[in-house]
Amino acid sequence: MPGEIVTSFIRAIERRDLPAALDHLSADVEYDNVPMGKVQGRAAVEAVLGPFIAPFDTIEWVVHHQVADGDRWRGVVMNERIDRFGAGERWLELPVAGLFVIEQGLITLWRDYFDRDTLLQQMAANG
Amino acid sequence: MPGEIVTSFIRAIERRDLPAALDHLSADVEYDNVPMGKVQGRAAVEAVLGPFIAPFDTIEWVVHHQVADGDRWRGVVMNERIDRFGAGERWLELPVAGLFVIEQGLITLWRDYFDRDTLLQQMAANG
Repeated sequence: MPGEIVTSFIRAIERRDLPAALDHLSADVEYDNVPMGKVQGRAAVEAVLGPFIAPFDTIEWVVHHQVADGDRWRGVVMNERIDRFGAGERWLELPVAGLFVIEQGLITLWRDYFDRDTLLQQMAANG
Repeated sequence: MPGEIVTSFIRAIERRDLPAALDHLSADVEYDNVPMGKVQGRAAVEAVLGPFIAPFDTIEWVVHHQVADGDRWRGVVMNERIDRFGAGERWLELPVAGLFVIEQGLITLWRDYFDRDTLLQQMAANG
């Protein structure tokens, strides 16, 4: 089911297993951080996500709600999360609402809605 | 179904029929504009939403995706929207991801994720 594909993707990110995470994405995936811009293609997602998660030793994406429509091949998933990134004693926490479109069992569109200033202030506090 | 409750709520806002919109909300509804703060209760929603929509002669909330789980009494709905507010030639447009929790056929939690600066810049451009 499409919700399970997204949950499996998030679990791979939480394990900081980037290759496993990327396996959930289509070759032409669009990754859109709405207030900051979007990239296209699996390599571009790796180039954005890899350096972002590298400094952290603990990643927890706490999903408060997740709603899905479709089957294991094709569907739409939305979730409400707190994305938590820990480095030692410090935590960066970002409230996010995410949209995932699944085609042929892979995520073809991943769009995250959040407040840009909240992210930048959290990054500065942890810099 | 819970998706229809949210769609009916949005249609009432588009008609700028605030009393009809409020009829979709529970008495103790929580309305959370994530990066800006939350209010509780139907009267508080009216106090936030009324002055916000009053200056506009056209309101269109264009729903790109909506996913729902539950029945007509209880459920969770998430949607991805562009909320458009028109006054004469001017348009304020805000990308939003919304979460709606339904209990006893009424919206008890409405949480919108968006970028605060995007909203403020759009309001300044239309001020």
